[in-house]
Amino acid sequence: MVSAVLEHSYVVGVDYGTLSGRAVVVRVSDGMEMGAAVSDYRHAVLDTALPTGETLPPDWALQVPSDYVDVLKSAVPQAIAAAGIDPAHVIGIATDFTACTVLPTLADGTPLAELAEFAQRPHAYVKLWRHHAAQGQADRINTLAAAREEDWLPKYGGLISAEWEFAKGLELLEADPEIYHRMDHWVEAADWIVWQLGGEYVRSECTAGYKGIRQNGAYPSREFLAALNPEFADFAVAKLDHRMGVLGSVAGYLTAEAAAWTGLPVGIAVAVGNVDAHVTASAAQAIDPGQMVAIMGTSTCHILNGTQLREVPGMCGVVDGGVVPGLWGYEAGQSGVGDIFGWFVKHSVPASYSETAATRGISVHELLTELASAQQIGAHGLVALDWHSGNRSVLVDHELSAVVVGQTLATRPEDTYRALLEATAFGARTIVQAFTSSGVPVTEFVVAGGLLKNPLLMQIYADVLRLPLSIIGSEQGPALGAAIHAAVAAGAYADIAAAARSMGKVHRGVYQPIEANARRYDALFAEYTTLHDYFGRGTNTVMHRLKAIRRAAVTG
Amino acid sequence: MVSAVLEHSYVVGVDYGTLSGRAVVVRVSDGMEMGAAVSDYRHAVLDTALPTGETLPPDWALQVPSDYVDVLKSAVPQAIAAAGIDPAHVIGIATDFTACTVLPTLADGTPLAELAEFAQRPHAYVKLWRHHAAQGQADRINTLAAAREEDWLPKYGGLISAEWEFAKGLELLEADPEIYHRMDHWVEAADWIVWQLGGEYVRSECTAGYKGIRQNGAYPSREFLAALNPEFADFAVAKLDHRMGVLGSVAGYLTAEAAAWTGLPVGIAVAVGNVDAHVTASAAQAIDPGQMVAIMGTSTCHILNGTQLREVPGMCGVVDGGVVPGLWGYEAGQSGVGDIFGWFVKHSVPASYSETAATRGISVHELLTELASAQQIGAHGLVALDWHSGNRSVLVDHELSAVVVGQTLATRPEDTYRALLEATAFGARTIVQAFTSSGVPVTEFVVAGGLLKNPLLMQIYADVLRLPLSIIGSEQGPALGAAIHAAVAAGAYADIAAAARSMGKVHRGVYQPIEANARRYDALFAEYTTLHDYFGRGTNTVMHRLKAIRRAAVTG
Repeated sequence: MVSAVLEHSYVVGVDYGTLSGRAVVVRVSDGMEMGAAVSDYRHAVLDTALPTGETLPPDWALQVPSDYVDVLKSAVPQAIAAAGIDPAHVIGIATDFTACTVLPTLADGTPLAELAEFAQRPHAYVKLWRHHAAQGQADRINTLAAAREEDWLPKYGGLISAEWEFAKGLELLEADPEIYHRMDHWVEAADWIVWQLGGEYVRSECTAGYKGIRQNGAYPSREFLAALNPEFADFAVAKLDHRMGVLGSVAGYLTAEAAAWTGLPVGIAVAVGNVDAHVTASAAQAIDPGQMVAIMGTSTCHILNGTQLREVPGMCGVVDGGVVPGLWGYEAGQSGVGDIFGWFVKHSVPASYSETAATRGISVHELLTELASAQQIGAHGLVALDWHSGNRSVLVDHELSAVVVGQTLATRPEDTYRALLEATAFGARTIVQAFTSSGVPVTEFVVAGGLLKNPLLMQIYADVLRLPLSIIGSEQGPALGAAIHAAVAAGAYADIAAAARSMGKVHRGVYQPIEANARRYDALFAEYTTLHDYFGRGTNTVMHRLKAIRRAAVTG
Repeated sequence: MVSAVLEHSYVVGVDYGTLSGRAVVVRVSDGMEMGAAVSDYRHAVLDTALPTGETLPPDWALQVPSDYVDVLKSAVPQAIAAAGIDPAHVIGIATDFTACTVLPTLADGTPLAELAEFAQRPHAYVKLWRHHAAQGQADRINTLAAAREEDWLPKYGGLISAEWEFAKGLELLEADPEIYHRMDHWVEAADWIVWQLGGEYVRSECTAGYKGIRQNGAYPSREFLAALNPEFADFAVAKLDHRMGVLGSVAGYLTAEAAAWTGLPVGIAVAVGNVDAHVTASAAQAIDPGQMVAIMGTSTCHILNGTQLREVPGMCGVVDGGVVPGLWGYEAGQSGVGDIFGWFVKHSVPASYSETAATRGISVHELLTELASAQQIGAHGLVALDWHSGNRSVLVDHELSAVVVGQTLATRPEDTYRALLEATAFGARTIVQAFTSSGVPVTEFVVAGGLLKNPLLMQIYADVLRLPLSIIGSEQGPALGAAIHAAVAAGAYADIAAAARSMGKVHRGVYQPIEANARRYDALFAEYTTLHDYFGRGTNTVMHRLKAIRRAAVTG
């Protein structure tokens, strides 16, 4: 497909993160990133009050939909300018979004938050992925689904998250029924922004599958929903269901209005919406079966394609075509990774270390990494469980908490820091083993996200996993992935796989497992697994009791 | 016994610590502390090199015997001067010492270290209690004693320490046989200093019992010792055995030479030697059965008298007359307490806390205590095992290490600090329960040592133990205890109990258990016990394996 035309053709990928949107202009022929621009959301995250002043309870996290449109108006033209290209040469645009981030709209896509009568109503706004006020609803969904043995439940590792469409939808119904009844659609932001660009509401196979419990073309049944709440019976049919769009296909064509916002040509292809983690697989050329891409940041999201449907214990979800059409897309997750290291550095490292780091002009992370790198494997005498934020895969238990075993008076911060790095690698190995032993083999570990900059961490992962570690070749993984989808939607490539081969960027096998190291880690991983099962699989449920004691103490 | 004479009579107690000696002049009638002085040992602890320059291996800790005599020459006259009394009114002197601190001497008491030919030989010096190079010998002693079912082994909780007379004696034989064969006596420093004062070598019932495996007037048998090493067969008979002295009795009378050193009258009573922790029981008026005195510093030593011999699992030792004549003196120990808190403050508290503490002019300990005091019990959601230095009582396993369960991203330093305070209280409760359930009931907990200054810690102990907490009324506990023994040796009181009643100082029941708190701690203690048994009683010996992995990693 690569032709002289493609050499002068470009696509735009827009990555919608938690606090900002990032636009990247990418050359279609080879994925060269020509220019980029970032635009912060004016309202950032509303977690204490609405713009109109109404205060919000704890656990809330809202956003303002017009902030997303502002990214189109600012970051996209700035990226084009930075790229120094003629916008007439842009042939397509695609987006990726945080998920599940969801909002109520009218039939024409107007957010209810933009109706004057609802501007002071919190439930009219976008509920960001980390809005956690629907836990009660999620608990009821899970209890009922387990009792009824709903066949979709195992496809989500046995747990529907409080962050997802159904829990947040039920919360909306029960907390502000007027808004619920007034809305025509309960729309993923990933689809809403595509709607704004192309003028058509098309639900992405990705978000509908992973966040909307859509399996085999169906949603949870009317009976199930009615049992949750009689008024919720038609939620799926009335509020969710809509035309579906395959990943990499056209959702619409750039409207005159959106062309005016962006400075891009009217009528270019707008791709079906996508999720940030999932689209990164294309950017990292990691969409073949066996290639697990791990987006490692504050937490880690694992994306993996398989040729067959398998029920992997503790996965976040499996969706037909959820990553690329024609394959089963699997998702798993570690609920804390980089944020554990950050917590440790902020709250457990003494002044002498921060002073040394400052004197040397390096971060405390870098200092600890340097000190930890000088150690032999196992010299710290520690093993830790990486459950500071609970455990998603494979135990699916947010009431779990962390453990460190082995500290002595000789233990220093770099020892515990290294033990925490290793603990997350052991957590990753537990996930990889769950997939492999469930018939979804993992043969390569492809890392994207901010943590790839830590070479000690990367070598630990290669050794612990006994897998070659590849590293994404772009700092704009999600935006590059979106651009790849735009190129496919524009017809420049036959499919995502072909586009990824030309446009994706990966450094293969940058870290190789060192067998002598791997054997030493085997001994520590065996200890990790024993503790993992002891604390995590019901032998000693002390962590649940400690959380209950804590809640009772704090509230009473 | 109190008479007008006693109103103007004084005794001197000298407390030999690890780094200095402290002399206190005490009024016999009421225990009033008239004056005190401290003298640092000139050579402190030799742990890297001899004074002559020879380097020492790790784990070594030696001292120079003349430093002890220097304390008599400096601190005693200074204390007399500070007291403003006429030294002619001093009727007795007594000492207490760290133990087991032991040295090789000639028949006349001359330390081999003071012979010119041995000045460069490390094994000629005093081996301080924390000289830990005889672990191999201790291991052999314990293995053999267990295999032979020696009846003295249960009286030491099943473990003879590497710090004690036999392990260090066997080390001496095997590492420097010339010194071993040249020495006439293997002398506790507690007895050696009394020898210097009174001119007579008398072995204390206390040190011989707790540190010298002397039970029912006998030592481990010749057959046992020969099985360890044929040349060790006569160790007990030839190197240890000597005239015994009951606690509180006269070991000798102040020699002219010692009178010249101290400025005290020739011929006054010199009491039998004693150990710092054990003599504190007298100072705290805690020698009746049921009164457990806990000397809480970097570690905690527990002293308790009972009317009968019982085998308490994991105690350090039980000795007939080991604390006061006529009662069975029990000793137990927690191998880390204050040093755990100190380690945490030094290595796990961030700059923001040290800066706040500095600004407010308080210590980081005080800041953390203040923050932790504001919490409800259990609000931190944590439970810890206090095994940073292993566990002496009741598990007798130095290969154990610490655990913290329950940390989350919301955990702050004061949370973990409080959990560590509580963990040591749970460790103390485990010991108290072991005594009570073995038929040696504990009805009062009497605290001495530096940690009594922390009111949060004290209330935690009262609540966790469900016992009234009494606090020693002197900052010079061991020296006051020694002075009490001096008064008994001088004939001013009929026995230690009578002297302690007049001269000891205690504030009874300063902290009372609060039942609502105690019930909350019961829940946490139940978790502690489950983890204690899981990690400490063989279900999961991960800590032993981690130590082995650590040693292999560090050395290989």
